[in-house]
Parts: sequence; C-alpha cells; structure tokens
Amino acid sequence: MDRKGILIVVSGYSGVGKGTLMKALTARYDNYALSISATTRKPREGELDGREYFFKTKEEFEELIAKDRLVEYANYCGNYYGTPRDYVEEQLGQGRDVILEIEQQGALKVREKMPDVLLLFVMPPDAQTLVQRLRGRETESEEVIRERLAQAVEESKYVDRYDYMIVNEDLDRAVEELHRLIGSQHNKISRNLDFTKQIQQELMALV
Amino acid sequence: MDRKGILIVVSGYSGVGKGTLMKALTARYDNYALSISATTRKPREGELDGREYFFKTKEEFEELIAKDRLVEYANYCGNYYGTPRDYVEEQLGQGRDVILEIEQQGALKVREKMPDVLLLFVMPPDAQTLVQRLRGRETESEEVIRERLAQAVEESKYVDRYDYMIVNEDLDRAVEELHRLIGSQHNKISRNLDFTKQIQQELMALV
Repeated sequence: MDRKGILIVVSGYSGVGKGTLMKALTARYDNYALSISATTRKPREGELDGREYFFKTKEEFEELIAKDRLVEYANYCGNYYGTPRDYVEEQLGQGRDVILEIEQQGALKVREKMPDVLLLFVMPPDAQTLVQRLRGRETESEEVIRERLAQAVEESKYVDRYDYMIVNEDLDRAVEELHRLIGSQHNKISRNLDFTKQIQQELMALV
Repeated sequence: MDRKGILIVVSGYSGVGKGTLMKALTARYDNYALSISATTRKPREGELDGREYFFKTKEEFEELIAKDRLVEYANYCGNYYGTPRDYVEEQLGQGRDVILEIEQQGALKVREKMPDVLLLFVMPPDAQTLVQRLRGRETESEEVIRERLAQAVEESKYVDRYDYMIVNEDLDRAVEELHRLIGSQHNKISRNLDFTKQIQQELMALV
C-alpha cells in the first residue's frame, strides 16, 4: 500500500476551531506534519516565530515570492500569508501527510498547482456555534467578529470546490473522523498504481 | 452530516476473498445492505435461492432486462448476472449503504448510469496468494484456475477505472479499512450540499 505522503489543505470559517483540531490531530497521531506558514501579520500574544508562523517583513515575504519559494500565498485582511515550499516537500518525501491550514484563496491556488492535493473544509454544526466561538475568543472586537462573519459568507460560495468536509461539533470525534478520512485516501487507486501494476505483472507471469 | 445511503460496487480477482470480506463486514456493522444478484448460473452446493443469488432461467432473466428492472447486467462465462433495481433503491432510500459485489463489466456499467457510485477493487497482497486461495477452494479444477488467472490478467487492465482499493491480506484489517473508507465517503462535500447550503443561509441571516 501507498505510504507516500499526502498533501492536505484544511480551511474553514474563522472561529470554527481549525487550529485546535489540527493541534489535537497531530498530538494524537505521528504520521502528520503541520506546515508552518510565513506571514507578515503581527504576532498575537503567546505566538512564537517558527512555531505558529514564520513572521516576516513585507520585504522578506516579497523576496520569497520572487524566488518562487512558496507553494501558495495570498493577501488576506491586508497581510501576506504563504506556505514555504522546502518544508512541505521534505516532509512528503519522508512519507508524512502534510497539513496546510490556509484560507480559501490559498487553498484553491494549491489545487491549481498540485491537482492531487486533498482539500478539506471544517464546518460548524450551525452558524450560531460559530458566533459563540468567535465571541468566546475575547481577542476580537464586535466589529472584527462582524468582518469575520461577512468573510464567512463570502467563503461559503466556494465551499463546493473542496473535496470533503468535517463537522467540528465534538473535538474528539472530529479528530477521529479527520484521521479516518485522510487515512482512507491512501487507498485511492490513483495513489497505488505502482502496486496494481506489480500485481498485474505477477499475474501475467503465471498464465 | 449526510446519511443518505451510498451505492458501492466491489470487484476483485476471482479468489481474492470478496465474498468472505463482504460477509464479515455486514456481520460486524449494520449500516450495510448486501445486494443480492440475479443469475442464470446453476446453484453451487449450499447456495440458496434468495440468499446467495436469485436463481433465474434464461427466459426470466431476459424479461427483467426487457422491463429495465436491472441496475446492470452482464454475461460472464456463459451466464447472466445482474442487479435487481428495486432492492437497491429501497435500501438506499432507508439510508443504508448498499454493496454490489459484481464483476468488472457490470461495475463499469454502473458508473455510466450512476456517476456517484463508489467503485472499490479488492487486491491480493501478491499474485501467489491469489493462486493459493484458488487452489484452497478445492471446488475448481486446474483448468478452471488457469481460466480464472487469465481472466484476472484481463481485468487488471481496467483496475485504474476504480476509485479505491483494499488489500485483503488480513481479513480483520481489511474489514476495518473498508468500513473506514466507506464511512469517510459520507464526508464528501458533493454528498452534503444541503448541509453546506443551510449553514450559508444561517450565516447570511447574521450579517
């Protein structure tokens, strides 16, 4: 069976709990590597350079773009966000499933460049739950919450471009569902053509 | 989340253990319905009409064809095999995942009629294991075994038209993998458009 790494993009409405879900998944299973994005946005309290993000100046970021060292990048709410290519390729090569937690613009760009990427969207069980989680964060003003919801409405128009969805109602269950879903992608025929070809050749040698 | 039934077609080389795998899966989990095929081949010892197959005369079978009461049918080794439509639709309507264990000609015809069918192929871990299982059956002469292997070589040319594969090395593990794989198909965005649309409308009502 295929054990080449799969590239997975995870998106979802702001406040849906993507970050928590990814942390829980990677803490529980060791076949995943969480890609670290580069960004020009300012660090939030508690965020460390090289852990949550690689924090870059605008000039540094634009140099990465110019040198084609990003899998994707996008400008979102006035800041650049992007995925450094080297880390992703290194982890895939080692057979790990690499997760990019990126917003929609970036996600759909990755599909253009890498058609066999797996696009996942994390959904809330309902919109009210999303609002409650945004309010619960307490780092966001009501104005920012309204902006996030308007952004969510915008993103909802392109959700059908994703492959699969995970409903994040119960964290533990969502982690298991996500793990099962990604695991089953290793069974795709298109990811196992070396194996099916080998069986074919063995069969031909027998008749 | 979507709980409409999924139509699943399972094929695999003769001797790979499809039947045993399907029996184990449906014995362990109750969300599956195993479709019962109609056939004009003679019953083997121990086979019961309405359990393993609906055994039909050639005339009866051709009447089902004429009245379009089959999801698919094919002529295989001189006998008709087909899937009665009524049973399949009834089970899907009740939210059960319906498994059709059919050979390749039939499988690929179902895809034409029903594009969202899930096509699975059961693979042996290697060709020698397949030969050993065919010999172990003891109901088949060496000549029949050679025919089955020649048929397998033929079928191997179209394996890449299937969606996913399951390697049947260890039965218990194959059952779990199959269950996980089918379960994860319920997370497909294309099977959940009612839900994603509903969240969208809830979000729009909030901004």
